[in-house]
This record gives sequence, structure tokens and C-alpha cells, in this order.
Amino acid sequence: MKGKRIILVTNDDGIKAKGLNVLADVAKSFGEVRIVAPLDSQSAMSHAITVKNPIRVFKETSFNGIEAYACNGTPVDCVKMAVHHLLPTKPSLILSGINHGSNSSSSILYSGTVAAAIEGCLNGIPSIGFSLLEFSNNANFEAAKVIVYKIIKEAIENGIPNGICLNVNIPYVPLDEIKGIKICRQNHGVWREEFEHRTDPNGFDYYWLTGTFENLEPHAEDTDEWALKNNYVSIVPIHYDFTSYKHIEEIKKWSLNGQFN
Amino acid sequence: MKGKRIILVTNDDGIKAKGLNVLADVAKSFGEVRIVAPLDSQSAMSHAITVKNPIRVFKETSFNGIEAYACNGTPVDCVKMAVHHLLPTKPSLILSGINHGSNSSSSILYSGTVAAAIEGCLNGIPSIGFSLLEFSNNANFEAAKVIVYKIIKEAIENGIPNGICLNVNIPYVPLDEIKGIKICRQNHGVWREEFEHRTDPNGFDYYWLTGTFENLEPHAEDTDEWALKNNYVSIVPIHYDFTSYKHIEEIKKWSLNGQFN
Repeated sequence: MKGKRIILVTNDDGIKAKGLNVLADVAKSFGEVRIVAPLDSQSAMSHAITVKNPIRVFKETSFNGIEAYACNGTPVDCVKMAVHHLLPTKPSLILSGINHGSNSSSSILYSGTVAAAIEGCLNGIPSIGFSLLEFSNNANFEAAKVIVYKIIKEAIENGIPNGICLNVNIPYVPLDEIKGIKICRQNHGVWREEFEHRTDPNGFDYYWLTGTFENLEPHAEDTDEWALKNNYVSIVPIHYDFTSYKHIEEIKKWSLNGQFN
Repeated sequence: MKGKRIILVTNDDGIKAKGLNVLADVAKSFGEVRIVAPLDSQSAMSHAITVKNPIRVFKETSFNGIEAYACNGTPVDCVKMAVHHLLPTKPSLILSGINHGSNSSSSILYSGTVAAAIEGCLNGIPSIGFSLLEFSNNANFEAAKVIVYKIIKEAIENGIPNGICLNVNIPYVPLDEIKGIKICRQNHGVWREEFEHRTDPNGFDYYWLTGTFENLEPHAEDTDEWALKNNYVSIVPIHYDFTSYKHIEEIKKWSLNGQFN
């Protein structure tokens, strides 16, 4: 298959991020890699798309042998631009990441890395988002590389079921401390926000969004948070249908019909 | 209860949008309204949050008697800013919209209107996103007003179950042509993107993201798209757990454990 399978690699940390380079490097073992990634950091951009501004694309020359483009938009813009415009054919696989920092639990809602994978899945393309639990620009990806390789290999061999993609998070510990890979559900947790108040040199107020994560079910062993806390790699199969099916019948009992007054 | 129940009203079209004003006006019948909305349009910003730029808040004076703030961030920033910083207590209800334009089917992924409601729900606050199927700035909200009133009334009387919020879409037809309100699931459909290529005055290429929506199950009568096409108001109960539970066992069968090589 090598040389035929086109693999799109993208991320939300931007085209210069170390994690993107590592992922592209691993992906080369499985097919012909193309990179379409944001020009600069698009962290926490979720599934945003650029509709009010022009989108520009810049061909990169710095990726030994890999055709690569930077795009001034969001991660989801990058996927759309790649799939619908830049690539010669629909890619066989979309890999997003490796994100510098965790995208487990409800962080998935804010993540551009995961959104890129969801956008791929929505377009019927097998997609995986990878995140390493370490924010630093110069994070060590040695263990992550091995794990990412294994997961891509299994995903290609088994096939990712239609309509879902995989959200993979990797603990930041040496490989021999990784206890294994767990298939999990998304943990229930929230960010408790604080706004750090400052005053600019002109005397105007501004705020930085900060916060601490609160795990609302710290003992639930089937969740991604639990797996990660216990040095397992977490894989959550995710989909883009937000319907809460079990509540449909309940809301149907409301008195919503008849006259609108 | 009036005068005690604090209702937060927000949107993604920005604080000057007609739909926001209409929603705030309807909400006044149910409690004490506070507005925290984006300074300008934040359409298609999904669940994005502002982490790399300062957030600023501006007190508005133009909302007869309603305490209102504009925020230079996204809809989700507005909810966070309101809930964690600006409001004296946690609101009893968050209403987002009324969006100028549809947020049904997979458009929910891109919508800032719906994301604001999801953020509310994640914080344990009953939340509803409202959208009218008409994009124009000066859309007629007369029928929408009546429907929104009825839905808020029922939501307060019955209580929105914990862990979900409601995504409401309203056809753009006169009230007497509305056939009723349907509780639905999210339709399966995709945007087929095109990138309109242009050249700027300096000779550089740029693109506008455009696209057409393709309904992949046009005859499914239990979906929001079908309801809207047939002049029903659609309500989809949605949640923020992206896990595809039915696929957990399937992925567990992959050979992911053992040695990482």
C-alpha cells in the first residue's frame, strides 16, 4: 500500500510545532504524507471555521520531501482546504497532532486537534487525534512516537468504523512506565474558570482566561482521565452526533403542541 | 419567581444583532435578564475560547433597563465571563440566540450559538440555543418570538434534565404556517466545501470558504432537517459527551496491548 495511501497530517499548534513533525515522521511508514497545518498556533479553536476573512495558503519548503502547506485558518479550515482543494484525492487517513498538551475529558470541546479529526470523520475519512500530556514546545516525543506508530498500525489493519474517530491521549512518562492502552469513555469534568484581571499601560482593564480542571468522577476507571492518571494511554472513540437519545422521549412529554400562546 | 431568576442572554452574531434583542425581550417575562454577548460577529466560532489574547469587557448603555456587557471574545468566552466573573450569582437559565440562520444537522459543530448553550450545560445551568432559518440582519422575528416564549415557559415548568441542553431551530414562515414543534435527533449531513479563489490587489491568492449542505438522510422523519423542511420547529436535546459508546467494545478487540513494537 505504501506510496498509494495518502495521509493528511495536521494539528492545532501550528506548522512549526515539534509534535507535527514527529507525527509526520511516524506517518511516513504508512503512506505518502501531506501536511496542511495552521500557520501559527490555533489552540482552543475547537471546530471554528473562517467565514469572515480570506483564507491564504503558503507552500512550505522545510519538510524534507513531504509536500506541506501552511494555512492562516483554523485546524478545521486546514482539513477542509486539504480534502476539498489541495490534495489530489481524498486522503485515506487524517492524523492530527501530536498536540502539546492534554485533550482528555471535556477539553475535547475546546480542542482544535480533536476538531480536525472530527471534521475528517464527518467527511468519511478515518481520523485520529493524538495528544501528549506535556505543554512545552520542546517536549520529548520518544515514547509517544512508539505508541502513535502502534495505534496507526492497528487502525489501518482493523479499520476505524465509519462515523467515529479516535481521541488518543498519551501520558508524559518514559515508555517503560506506560502500563498499556485503554479504550475509554470521555470523563465528566469541568474547567473552573478564573479571569486574571490586569490593567494595560493606558489604564484599561483586561483579563486572561485561566482555570483549573475539576474531575467530577475521579474514581471512574472506564474514563480517559483515570487511564491517564494511572499511566495508561487513553483512546476514546468519538462521534459528531450530539443528540442525547435517552432524553428524546422525556422532552416529548412537555406540552409543546397546540396553540402558540 | 420574577425578579429573582437571573437569565443570561448571549449569542454569536454580536451584541448589536436583532435576534439578541428579541431574545432578551422575550426573556424579560421570565426573570431578571443580563446580557453578555460578543462585541462583534462570532459566527462559526464553535466552542473556541480565547487563550492567547487579552479579553476585554465593555458595559453597554443601550439596553433599556437590562444590564448588558459586550466582550471581545467568543460566545463561550461570554458564558465563562458571565458565569465566573460578571454575574452576582450563577444564572438559572442561559439563552443563546436568536441566531440569524440555521444551526441544524452538522452545522451544530460550527455554531457559536449552540456552543454557548453547551458551555452552560457543562456548568450545570439549564441552557437553550435558538436559531431562525433566515440570515438577514433585519429578519422578521414575530413568529419566532411566540415560539421562543412557549419553549422557555415549558423548559422552566418541566426543567431541562441535567447534562443536556436544547438546540432549537425555527422555520422562517409566518406563525400560522408552523405545523408544530418536534423533538428530533440531529440529522446526518455534511457541508460540501468549495474554496472560491481570488487574487488580491497585490497579486496574492486568497480563498473564501463556501459550500453547500448535503442531507445524507433526507427522508428520515425523526431528524431536525426533516422537521424544518416540513415547517416544524425542531428541538434536539444535546449533550457534551462525544463518546461513541457502541464502539468501545469493537476497538477493545484491536491488538493494542503487549509490547510497543
